[in-house]
Amino acid sequence: MAFKSDIEIAREANKKPIQEIGAKLGIGSEHLLPYGHDKAKLSQEFINSVKDRPNGKLILVTAINPTPAGEGKTTTTVGLGDGLNAIGKKACVCIREASLGPNFGMKGGAAGGGYAQVVPMEEMNLHFTGDFHAITSAHNLLAAMIDNHIYWGNELDIDTRRVTWRRVLDMNDRALRDVVTSLGGVANGFPRQAGFDITVASEVMAILCLATDLADLQKRLGDMIVAYRRDKSPVYARDIKADGAMTVLLKDAMQPNLVQTLENNPAFVHGGPFANIAHGCNSVIATTTALKLADYVVTEAGFGADLGAEKFMNIKCRKAGLAPDCVVLVATVRAMKMNGGVAKADLGAENVEAVQKGCANLGRHIENVKSFGVPVVVAINHFAGDTEAEVDAVREYVASQGSEAILSKHWADGSRGSADLARRVAEIAEKGEAQFAPLYPDEMGLFEKIETIAKRIYRADEVLADQKIRTQLKEWEAQGYGNLPVCMAKTQYSFSTDPSLRGAPTGHSVPVREVRLSAGAGFVVAICGEIMTMPGLPRVPSAEAIRLNDAGQIEGLF
Amino acid sequence: MAFKSDIEIAREANKKPIQEIGAKLGIGSEHLLPYGHDKAKLSQEFINSVKDRPNGKLILVTAINPTPAGEGKTTTTVGLGDGLNAIGKKACVCIREASLGPNFGMKGGAAGGGYAQVVPMEEMNLHFTGDFHAITSAHNLLAAMIDNHIYWGNELDIDTRRVTWRRVLDMNDRALRDVVTSLGGVANGFPRQAGFDITVASEVMAILCLATDLADLQKRLGDMIVAYRRDKSPVYARDIKADGAMTVLLKDAMQPNLVQTLENNPAFVHGGPFANIAHGCNSVIATTTALKLADYVVTEAGFGADLGAEKFMNIKCRKAGLAPDCVVLVATVRAMKMNGGVAKADLGAENVEAVQKGCANLGRHIENVKSFGVPVVVAINHFAGDTEAEVDAVREYVASQGSEAILSKHWADGSRGSADLARRVAEIAEKGEAQFAPLYPDEMGLFEKIETIAKRIYRADEVLADQKIRTQLKEWEAQGYGNLPVCMAKTQYSFSTDPSLRGAPTGHSVPVREVRLSAGAGFVVAICGEIMTMPGLPRVPSAEAIRLNDAGQIEGLF
Repeated sequence: MAFKSDIEIAREANKKPIQEIGAKLGIGSEHLLPYGHDKAKLSQEFINSVKDRPNGKLILVTAINPTPAGEGKTTTTVGLGDGLNAIGKKACVCIREASLGPNFGMKGGAAGGGYAQVVPMEEMNLHFTGDFHAITSAHNLLAAMIDNHIYWGNELDIDTRRVTWRRVLDMNDRALRDVVTSLGGVANGFPRQAGFDITVASEVMAILCLATDLADLQKRLGDMIVAYRRDKSPVYARDIKADGAMTVLLKDAMQPNLVQTLENNPAFVHGGPFANIAHGCNSVIATTTALKLADYVVTEAGFGADLGAEKFMNIKCRKAGLAPDCVVLVATVRAMKMNGGVAKADLGAENVEAVQKGCANLGRHIENVKSFGVPVVVAINHFAGDTEAEVDAVREYVASQGSEAILSKHWADGSRGSADLARRVAEIAEKGEAQFAPLYPDEMGLFEKIETIAKRIYRADEVLADQKIRTQLKEWEAQGYGNLPVCMAKTQYSFSTDPSLRGAPTGHSVPVREVRLSAGAGFVVAICGEIMTMPGLPRVPSAEAIRLNDAGQIEGLF
Repeated sequence: MAFKSDIEIAREANKKPIQEIGAKLGIGSEHLLPYGHDKAKLSQEFINSVKDRPNGKLILVTAINPTPAGEGKTTTTVGLGDGLNAIGKKACVCIREASLGPNFGMKGGAAGGGYAQVVPMEEMNLHFTGDFHAITSAHNLLAAMIDNHIYWGNELDIDTRRVTWRRVLDMNDRALRDVVTSLGGVANGFPRQAGFDITVASEVMAILCLATDLADLQKRLGDMIVAYRRDKSPVYARDIKADGAMTVLLKDAMQPNLVQTLENNPAFVHGGPFANIAHGCNSVIATTTALKLADYVVTEAGFGADLGAEKFMNIKCRKAGLAPDCVVLVATVRAMKMNGGVAKADLGAENVEAVQKGCANLGRHIENVKSFGVPVVVAINHFAGDTEAEVDAVREYVASQGSEAILSKHWADGSRGSADLARRVAEIAEKGEAQFAPLYPDEMGLFEKIETIAKRIYRADEVLADQKIRTQLKEWEAQGYGNLPVCMAKTQYSFSTDPSLRGAPTGHSVPVREVRLSAGAGFVVAICGEIMTMPGLPRVPSAEAIRLNDAGQIEGLF
């Protein structure tokens, strides 16, 4: 049997006008700002009008450590949302927006897969509603204003060697990582070392995703540190007087985007911060608003549970006052096999032993999630080649850990395939047994927060850091930033900082190479490995094959 | 009496849903892709479906050489459109989109003024429907692919000193004019001199505004020259295989944007190329489509008639097969006074003599426009302080030149104020006396084309150019580019290349400093003076005062 590709399925979608989708959540069409017939932004008035309603149940979808086999976290998020709607619950999905640039490098894109997708897929992978372009503009306006301030006399006494605010583009362009600007003479300013990141790495992106409203957005933008003086005192975006204009540029980008699943259920797709130097979740405003409109909100976090769920709990939930009612941990038989030592080329053959071995990774994630006080259910995202014995091996392992694993076939069958998962999730959430608490209190020292995550989540023996880093953390504590959560930037492929160390390693160390203060977003980033904030294009970028076909459809993007 | 500001008037606009505006042009709501409730893009299917309809009348609004007094070309375009509708003609306005970046420098923005405006004004001056962001993305994708090609082995043998394709941002950022990229070591590529322009200066913008459809767009994008080899042979965007993906990024940007005037009449606002290194007109696709939908299409060209109308005729009309039926030349009493030697501070006092003296500038523009075989009528855009004697002086002068000047009060009174102008324009257009022909044939040599414009339009005695420039033009002719029109880049403030030379100078020379080939847009640019393609911010940028007020309205942008 030949499978249809994601894009073929997406093109066959029987989309309903976005006003009908909004109506399912009780949103009047006057409160939907349409972008075409299948996308809309929610008006601020409407968001304000529902603020006092009670919250629905919050379900977080997270996963084991990613492997090249694929886990299908977004696919499961969408499938579970459709499944909940199919069993009669009013459910809504909240996921992140895609970055445009990377689509032109590796063949990529998609928002879910198979029969568990969000549409319109092409537009979500291109300009969508322009949110990322607005972030690019706001970010680069601040950059231009900083250099302009220096050009006209530098009243703030900025040390031009210590301008930390880089520029951004939503493009994979390695040539821009490290540049010298303001060459060419007096009229162009003072030459200095500078660089570009990809837009999703901007602190503005992280702020947009954590701000509760436009006033909070502007305050946080103003709080950003953009440079230091010779005496090391910080210069804020507020000092540059850029926060007002940046807020104006981000006004529409702050409004959540409504689209639909293939089964015509509502989905908010809003924001998309990096999951390493930022917290990797869709916007707080989308999640909190969805909770007012639906009985169930299904959302996801970036990478595996060690990074994504940890940040969802310790950063997003803490800051936004959210508490998940149930966590769905996505695993696949294939990924278990890879964690058990099987090479990608050999995934086709049944190998129950490897599955059993690889389950150690899953087991530790289950334990970690439970430590936040939230019940967990494992979703085995079904692939066509999985054998019954392999699936049973996962089930048995999870049962031995005191949890339950449910096979879900949403990829092949949409909500019919995810009904069992949906029923179990609903049961757990309705029991109300979750006792959510973040892993550490605000008051804990910054270094101790890093240690807590490293030891309790990564199961490392120790955190290694130079005196310089420890001193920097102490300085930030003295400046009043000690109450911030920490945002860990490490490889997503392992509990450790060694990407090749699969399974459930112990006895390792977590070296902190660098710490950064995202004073506007409100977290301290601990960098534990090479973090690339401006990707490059491969030898043969997918852009070379991307084109419109004779029917006006996009080829080569997926 | 206190006048309301443009923004106050715009905010009080009684906007109708964009579907009602589309209906006035016979566009079904299924063919309008809405962006909010007051903006929409026209579907390609609809554009295709009207291709065989007869054309309405085409009216070009142009002006005398701009002075700091302001002429009100867009205001008159909008006012005339409303006036034509008010006297019972089915009329549509076609104007350019605004660039985002400059709004954060000088207080700017607006689309028309007073009671002759297009709305929604704020959004048209911010992200609007994202067209310029799409151009930025497409342009920079090509840039990234060029450096990526070099990085992976440079099979095309590009001379890295001769990469002519720069990058763009829609931002005033002088620090980016001249940069060195790919610093930082092996992983970041080969360091080279590079730079950024503002997005409106991109050749992609000029192409979007000249392309007839998506196939033509892709062909032109592929034709762009991006670099040269050591042997000086050109490398095209097609060689980089970027043309397909760029077209995908520009797919929606190619569709004209429909908005409305304060009087709820339809206006297409689409494209906005520079008026010096490019041709400075809204898109061909907007103008040609509007001509199928309305009996009258009122459009404008950049700067004064010496640059804007000349390029409209010799580039846009020639290439798109358009022929204007009447030209409206906008003049103001204040601008006549400045051309007659009065300083800006003294414009308040009546000075009939200065008006008479300044009319020489107007007279030459009348003569020039007539030389294209198109009837011309002068619109005196009324300012509150104009005296009757001053207005009469302009009227008499214009009559002495065999034309007619009509006082138009659209700024203060909307269509009531422009009804006289509208009636006269309709009379002229309906007589069908225009015998449009471009100034020079395709077959003329490139240097002779420059001379023709310099002598017949600017009334210069001679064109000065180094042998190097003349040789370059000959080389392009040998390569098959000799049939292209030329695009003059000179100061907009004078017929000459000296911005301080007002009135109607003669006996001057036109020095050509540089020539550039825009092979995709399809013209040769002759640069006759300093042309700035990346503006800077002033000492106190307007961005510092731009913010949202407590009512959520934008302050400081206008």
